[in-house]
Amino acid sequence: METYMILRDLAVIILAAKFMGLLAHKCRIPAVAGEIVAGLIIGPCLLGIVKPSDFINQMAEIGVILIMFSAGLETNLKELKKSGPAALVIACSGVFVPLVFGALLYMGYHGFSAPGTDGFFKALFIGCIMTATSVSITVEALKELGVLSSRMGQTILSAAIIDDVIGIIVLTFVLAMKDPENNPAEVIFKTVAFLVLALLFGILFYRIFKRIDARYPHTRRIPIIGLGLCFILSYVAEKYFGIADITGAYIAGIILCNIRDAEYIDRKVSINSYMIFAPVFFTGIGLKTDLGNVQADMLLFALFFVLAACLGKILGCGFISKCLGFNTADSLKIGIGMMTRGEVALIISNKGLNLGIIDPSYFTPVILLIIFTSITVPVLLKVLQSRFPS
Amino acid sequence: METYMILRDLAVIILAAKFMGLLAHKCRIPAVAGEIVAGLIIGPCLLGIVKPSDFINQMAEIGVILIMFSAGLETNLKELKKSGPAALVIACSGVFVPLVFGALLYMGYHGFSAPGTDGFFKALFIGCIMTATSVSITVEALKELGVLSSRMGQTILSAAIIDDVIGIIVLTFVLAMKDPENNPAEVIFKTVAFLVLALLFGILFYRIFKRIDARYPHTRRIPIIGLGLCFILSYVAEKYFGIADITGAYIAGIILCNIRDAEYIDRKVSINSYMIFAPVFFTGIGLKTDLGNVQADMLLFALFFVLAACLGKILGCGFISKCLGFNTADSLKIGIGMMTRGEVALIISNKGLNLGIIDPSYFTPVILLIIFTSITVPVLLKVLQSRFPS
Repeated sequence: METYMILRDLAVIILAAKFMGLLAHKCRIPAVAGEIVAGLIIGPCLLGIVKPSDFINQMAEIGVILIMFSAGLETNLKELKKSGPAALVIACSGVFVPLVFGALLYMGYHGFSAPGTDGFFKALFIGCIMTATSVSITVEALKELGVLSSRMGQTILSAAIIDDVIGIIVLTFVLAMKDPENNPAEVIFKTVAFLVLALLFGILFYRIFKRIDARYPHTRRIPIIGLGLCFILSYVAEKYFGIADITGAYIAGIILCNIRDAEYIDRKVSINSYMIFAPVFFTGIGLKTDLGNVQADMLLFALFFVLAACLGKILGCGFISKCLGFNTADSLKIGIGMMTRGEVALIISNKGLNLGIIDPSYFTPVILLIIFTSITVPVLLKVLQSRFPS
Repeated sequence: METYMILRDLAVIILAAKFMGLLAHKCRIPAVAGEIVAGLIIGPCLLGIVKPSDFINQMAEIGVILIMFSAGLETNLKELKKSGPAALVIACSGVFVPLVFGALLYMGYHGFSAPGTDGFFKALFIGCIMTATSVSITVEALKELGVLSSRMGQTILSAAIIDDVIGIIVLTFVLAMKDPENNPAEVIFKTVAFLVLALLFGILFYRIFKRIDARYPHTRRIPIIGLGLCFILSYVAEKYFGIADITGAYIAGIILCNIRDAEYIDRKVSINSYMIFAPVFFTGIGLKTDLGNVQADMLLFALFFVLAACLGKILGCGFISKCLGFNTADSLKIGIGMMTRGEVALIISNKGLNLGIIDPSYFTPVILLIIFTSITVPVLLKVLQSRFPS
């Protein structure tokens, strides 16, 4: 591909995303949902003007990293400490219930399998795909509604970060049942090691940054070095600890959220994000979807799959929130906010495909789930928020 | 390549570029030169931490587009009208002299060839590689020195834009000598057509933008739509008119340079540029260079090639500037400012390689020329500017 071709794709993406985002906003739907629809319109699904490419995937990856970094920078650490324990309980329940629902759904379709058999293992894997919440869309929606830093918002954010980690641990456990090379103890060790190292380096970086910030406040080097730290932590998390890179980006944001120029860094990062990278990420979800490819026999399964995945989070997270003392409206918002799935579900499916556990047709329900939750969650949150302000 | 690998490359590039840029600045060398050296250090030339990749090339392409768009936005149209006629004369002379120098150098090495022969044609092609100024490095250097909007700065900018167009016309003429499919009349027609269309659409877009700007001043849509226009014009210029995409980006900037929010757009674009894209572009030049690959027999030719290309611009542009009434210091600054070569020289060389006119060994002198001028021009301009302020 000639390099200048990317200019055409970028122009179409950012203009279509902005136009559909503004239109969605006028219809009182969050801009994010409009951007995903923009991807459906310009992508192979409808007009076919822009096709998914390596370049768009890579730009989208940077987009999701910037969104998570920004979310970390806007974290209210005091609020997180308050929401942490509740978030942990909600996350665990929000992983467990969809895992069971997914496995039961598969068994309902293919007959019950005893533990240890191949069928049981596949059923668990389908459950695994449903576990990890993709918080980026919910974060954007909560930001638009101005409630990201509320107790409810922080609980969703923390729980989604935690369930990513738990989801990956569960996945590795499930995979360990098939492949003896995947050692569950090693996985736990790596995760704990990453969090301990992140804490230690976090304190170190926080001190270094505080010093640089005091000496050169409001200079370009502050956001640039911050962004460098974000990229490094994302890379290290994924490469050496098997933890999603977006978790690393979020932690980088948390490390810097208490320095004096945190808001200054956030502003510069957000400009990079909303001008180019974030539209590519959200439009990219629409681009990847070819709704014409849905096979008739998969459609019914896909519908139940989406239903099970959504109910799993609403019950798993919403019900437990209510038990933890949130009011009904906020519990429902938490359950719905946790419904969104994204790149982690795709990554897990891809892993299953590569290992021969599932066949490519299972991508259809996953993509439908991502699209469905990406569009409905922001809408539902907005409706709930306007009726029951927190 | 796993997508998260790009995060590592990006982190290394932006941190190394910032560090070397700051170091260069401390040594009173322009930051841009430091960023290119950063590329040499982290690239295959020395440490080999980051390797050139499609992704880095594409990010660099966006970087150079953003730099040119920003340059266009900062254009002082009144000053350009004043500097235009002089710039045209300087550009023509600055294309002609290096073309002759390059051809003579080749003939000096391989013996004189009569017009119409294969040797004569190759000699002219070597001259062609030398014609197009790469203004982006000079623009960054002039911006750092705060003289981009001076008469001298605007003359360099205009002349470099014009010599791109003239250089491409000359190239197509030369290629037309080999390939009857390349019709010189068509090339002239396309170039004129593009400029006329750009003028017409420019007036239209300017009016539309003025209206949007008056209705929604300082909203995100202004810089986003502006950036979309920039990408579209860059793409259309290259794809349909055979004119370098950076010329399209510059024209997009000029179209918008007189709207009320021009400075607002420029600020947002500049933040995108300096945080990620511009460091990738400048570091990328260093990355592409493998100085270890220089063959002994090419080295002498390369030295003369660099000398001829630099002298060609100093004489071709500097001397004529003096004749046009610039003082000696400003004439020298114009000659030196026009010395920089970049992606166009590489694109032309690549074309020659693909058409079988030159062999790959000729890349060495071209890359050396780019590196040499990229580092020396900013330094020389800074020295000249501090001794003889304009």
